[in-house]
Amino acid sequence: MTRKVIIDCDPGVDDALALMLAHGSPELDVLAVTVCGGNQTLEKVTRNALSLADELGMDWIPVAAGAERPLVRDPLTAGHVHGDTGLGLVQLPEPRHPLDERHAVEVIAQTVLSNGPGEVTIIATGPLTNLALAIRQFPQLVEHTQEVVLMGGGVATGNLTPVAEFNIAVDPEAARAVFTAGWPVTMVGLDATHQALATPEIEARFAGLGTRLGDIAVELIRSYRDAYKHNQAFENPPCHDPVAVAQVIAPDLVPTRRAPVDVELHGELTTGQTVVDLRGPAPEDCPTAVATGLDHAGFWDLVVSAVENLGEPARKDA
Amino acid sequence: MTRKVIIDCDPGVDDALALMLAHGSPELDVLAVTVCGGNQTLEKVTRNALSLADELGMDWIPVAAGAERPLVRDPLTAGHVHGDTGLGLVQLPEPRHPLDERHAVEVIAQTVLSNGPGEVTIIATGPLTNLALAIRQFPQLVEHTQEVVLMGGGVATGNLTPVAEFNIAVDPEAARAVFTAGWPVTMVGLDATHQALATPEIEARFAGLGTRLGDIAVELIRSYRDAYKHNQAFENPPCHDPVAVAQVIAPDLVPTRRAPVDVELHGELTTGQTVVDLRGPAPEDCPTAVATGLDHAGFWDLVVSAVENLGEPARKDA
Amino acid sequence: MTRKVIIDCDPGVDDALALMLAHGSPELDVLAVTVCGGNQTLEKVTRNALSLADELGMDWIPVAAGAERPLVRDPLTAGHVHGDTGLGLVQLPEPRHPLDERHAVEVIAQTVLSNGPGEVTIIATGPLTNLALAIRQFPQLVEHTQEVVLMGGGVATGNLTPVAEFNIAVDPEAARAVFTAGWPVTMVGLDATHQALATPEIEARFAGLGTRLGDIAVELIRSYRDAYKHNQAFENPPCHDPVAVAQVIAPDLVPTRRAPVDVELHGELTTGQTVVDLRGPAPEDCPTAVATGLDHAGFWDLVVSAVENLGEPARKDA
Amino acid sequence: MTRKVIIDCDPGVDDALALMLAHGSPELDVLAVTVCGGNQTLEKVTRNALSLADELGMDWIPVAAGAERPLVRDPLTAGHVHGDTGLGLVQLPEPRHPLDERHAVEVIAQTVLSNGPGEVTIIATGPLTNLALAIRQFPQLVEHTQEVVLMGGGVATGNLTPVAEFNIAVDPEAARAVFTAGWPVTMVGLDATHQALATPEIEARFAGLGTRLGDIAVELIRSYRDAYKHNQAFENPPCHDPVAVAQVIAPDLVPTRRAPVDVELHGELTTGQTVVDLRGPAPEDCPTAVATGLDHAGFWDLVVSAVENLGEPARKDA
Repeated sequence: MTRKVIIDCDPGVDDALALMLAHGSPELDVLAVTVCGGNQTLEKVTRNALSLADELGMDWIPVAAGAERPLVRDPLTAGHVHGDTGLGLVQLPEPRHPLDERHAVEVIAQTVLSNGPGEVTIIATGPLTNLALAIRQFPQLVEHTQEVVLMGGGVATGNLTPVAEFNIAVDPEAARAVFTAGWPVTMVGLDATHQALATPEIEARFAGLGTRLGDIAVELIRSYRDAYKHNQAFENPPCHDPVAVAQVIAPDLVPTRRAPVDVELHGELTTGQTVVDLRGPAPEDCPTAVATGLDHAGFWDLVVSAVENLGEPARKDA
Repeated sequence: MTRKVIIDCDPGVDDALALMLAHGSPELDVLAVTVCGGNQTLEKVTRNALSLADELGMDWIPVAAGAERPLVRDPLTAGHVHGDTGLGLVQLPEPRHPLDERHAVEVIAQTVLSNGPGEVTIIATGPLTNLALAIRQFPQLVEHTQEVVLMGGGVATGNLTPVAEFNIAVDPEAARAVFTAGWPVTMVGLDATHQALATPEIEARFAGLGTRLGDIAVELIRSYRDAYKHNQAFENPPCHDPVAVAQVIAPDLVPTRRAPVDVELHGELTTGQTVVDLRGPAPEDCPTAVATGLDHAGFWDLVVSAVENLGEPARKDA
Repeated sequence: MTRKVIIDCDPGVDDALALMLAHGSPELDVLAVTVCGGNQTLEKVTRNALSLADELGMDWIPVAAGAERPLVRDPLTAGHVHGDTGLGLVQLPEPRHPLDERHAVEVIAQTVLSNGPGEVTIIATGPLTNLALAIRQFPQLVEHTQEVVLMGGGVATGNLTPVAEFNIAVDPEAARAVFTAGWPVTMVGLDATHQALATPEIEARFAGLGTRLGDIAVELIRSYRDAYKHNQAFENPPCHDPVAVAQVIAPDLVPTRRAPVDVELHGELTTGQTVVDLRGPAPEDCPTAVATGLDHAGFWDLVVSAVENLGEPARKDA
Repeated sequence: MTRKVIIDCDPGVDDALALMLAHGSPELDVLAVTVCGGNQTLEKVTRNALSLADELGMDWIPVAAGAERPLVRDPLTAGHVHGDTGLGLVQLPEPRHPLDERHAVEVIAQTVLSNGPGEVTIIATGPLTNLALAIRQFPQLVEHTQEVVLMGGGVATGNLTPVAEFNIAVDPEAARAVFTAGWPVTMVGLDATHQALATPEIEARFAGLGTRLGDIAVELIRSYRDAYKHNQAFENPPCHDPVAVAQVIAPDLVPTRRAPVDVELHGELTTGQTVVDLRGPAPEDCPTAVATGLDHAGFWDLVVSAVENLGEPARKDA
């Protein structure tokens, strides 16, 4: 049975890989793509989402723009990682895919609520501003959504700061709203995603597909390789966002542990840190879980296979 | 020329007086009433808003429900001040006024944006959650709104805490978003509203009107008198919310001073405090101002006169 | 009956006036002068204290150096107000007065504890680091000291920030320790000291004394006049520190109100603010009070008279 | 060559084992024991330190009491872990060892400064209040001390809270002062000490010594076993404090990694967390390091051997 998902993202190099994995996997039915300012400005990531919709053949799937800035704090982007366009070295033509006229918040609400209770999963790979706005305006989403699986945070590690990961740190207030809403939330954090390293072998497999999308994947990985070597001394770059998608497709590849999660909003050194309580067994009714590792081979098999599945979508402008 | 206003409120004893002043004043054209959880739960204050719309004869004016809880923090109500229903001793029949189906955020956005730029003023007398959600979802509101005049905060005083006022302290993150958005904001805080004391003479003037609304005003004031005597050792109760309305109708009655305003979000003792910089002249382009006092006589003349103007509205249920 | 006092200070232009007032007033017996980094570095303010001891004829009074930096935070000085030496335009010869070999903390402890319980008052006119260190190392000081009267803080105003005063903001952790220790603390804050304006008439009275110390007072005031005109748009400069001394000599000149006081340590905008709860009567056993005003004429009579009393001390180097 | 050490502690079940390891190891020369309120009240841990000095035969070694409460925050003890006396099930006779009349701060300062520069190491196994007071009053200690090795903190784990360890969380302001002073600090945190598990085999080795001290060690471990089973679901209890001593005696047993360390003071969820930046290589001049693991067998060999070395000290009261 396919799972219905909304992808809320900020493409973003690794968001692009996440979209490929999601749309190329028969296990998932992508109902909508919503976009949030994050890795780059809302304008840029919206353009990227539309261009990727073209490339991936996401015909009929609505793509809607959302929050241009965090709930409370000043905007922060990550051009040093994702480049000036947000897609690294990848150059995509002007998008043909139409921008949905609705705000992302409306798209999320209408998509979830027009399906049955517990039928739609939200996969979030950017800051959580859209989701926070959505549950504040439509509180019934909390009951109606199947679960939220998000790339963000980490148990004991950070990238923007020693202890805070970018997606959470950009809008920690939104993250707290999402983590503490009471719906099931699975946090796929750096503990797992720092293992999703794209080695030269992985690159070669994408290159070997001989498709335009395979080549785009190669370019995305190369963009990330340069950025991560320069910024964080990673030999091979960690491809964060598709790990959250993989967790939905194949939970065994991304094992999780149930644990309370909250987000620090008021620290001097720790704001944006996901605080995970691993001191004992989680309470019975704990709705949050955290990814603890990754099956590296299985994960990349999944991504390569998805890109292969996508084949050569008919470009609308063809 | 009349000024078009939206009243965003949480009725609330003094919100009721604010609605009377607004709807009874020929200077204002109330385009919509939007409601936010605050003095009481969203359910209760929405009911109160609808019942007041009946009593005041607010036919055709949309009344819409909004946020049931703050952006980030846990909800907090003020039943010890506004009573279990939110309207103190006042008992109103079940409302006939229809609840607008839209969310308050939509009503605010559509009302402001369907009028010309700079034509609509928002008067806020509750927590600022609806306004914050509105500008995050529809950033163009910031340019398009004439100004925001809000009851909340204080320069050097508080009521919920030594330095924080209730409306701001309930949702300080929303308040920061509103104060720092860049649109003109006039803060009508405790410095002014603690002078809006309803003396027995004022009560007598409302009683002397001999109308149902005059009697309701008397009951509202008596409810407040009891609450403020008991909770805060006020001899005569301060009627906060109508002062914000008065500031729009007759700015001379509520003098203001231009000054930077921000809201503390991270203090142990000061969260929810409006931090107003009065150390020197405000910067040229400072969009915020704070009320510094009140013409007590002129203010109450305005409110009594508004209630008199409302006369005996034809009850829909008559 | 004279009152025994320790002056803990960071001279500092207005600290110099405070020392003149204290040592020149028959009502006070200055047992020791202890020094803390603040208005300038510990090295500079220690030198100033010793030079002032020479000028004022403080023979036999121990002068001891204390903390060179705050308990927790990084040091901050106020050279823009007190000049490069810390005494503005005033140039004093190299000190002859010996520096006590003990640390200020020891001097405070031994001075208080070698007198009877409740016999010694500590007047603090700088950051409160020395006092905080003293009560942490010698907790018995809390019971044994008569009271602490300090220049610092404010109810609704600040100078370093919109809401924080310099002495408190430099070491807010120390201030919290002092305010909440349980001993009687009288806060003489900006609410009072911003009224201690040195007008040209006051300056003329010091000049009219025809003494070296009168001339030094004139120069101190002129230094302050320049600094306050430039930094804070004061026509006449507020002479803060002697107001705390005056409060001990003549409490009627500096009326106070009993109220709980604490210090914000964790705010983004409010750290170092003294949070004073004026919402109702103080609890019965409230050990803290805040100055609410100043008798301007009476205050300056006291200071001029003290400088006159000091006459022309025999300089040790004469 | 023996290393001269001061043990600053709050005995405390595991502090007792740390004292045994230190005094029983020929590699260390314990110059002084200073005590700080922590695991239990200052009064109780001081009594315990004196009683342990009797039992261990620490003749001539000064034992001095220090801070009874943290720099800024309210006191917090850990009776649920260390029992009502602070030594679990162990009952020791009234102490004969004399209490040094000096304050711990003086003892630390005089001990370090009366030895050559870089000759004395401070091993801290309790809250860091004494050390913070010492460096604020005697800043020259920072240059003069060889290094500080402390049990406290953790990279990604806590015990008092999900992310904060007891010793640091009790006085985080003191901890920040110590970590950021500029002297070499080695943090032996939960990452290492949670591996110092006292298994039944370890218990049996102490029992096998057939000495009174061996029996005391057994009782200490049993006390801890009960407490940790009940409070934190540990099968075998982690014996934290002796690991810091072991790090000084045999650094190979407790490998460390150089990394910047600071302490969060202002978080809602993270106050008292040690924030360790492991994102890349440490800066050249980084003076802080964190323990990353433990050689379990080597560690316990060291402790058992030390207790064996101590033999049966002649009790003073014998």
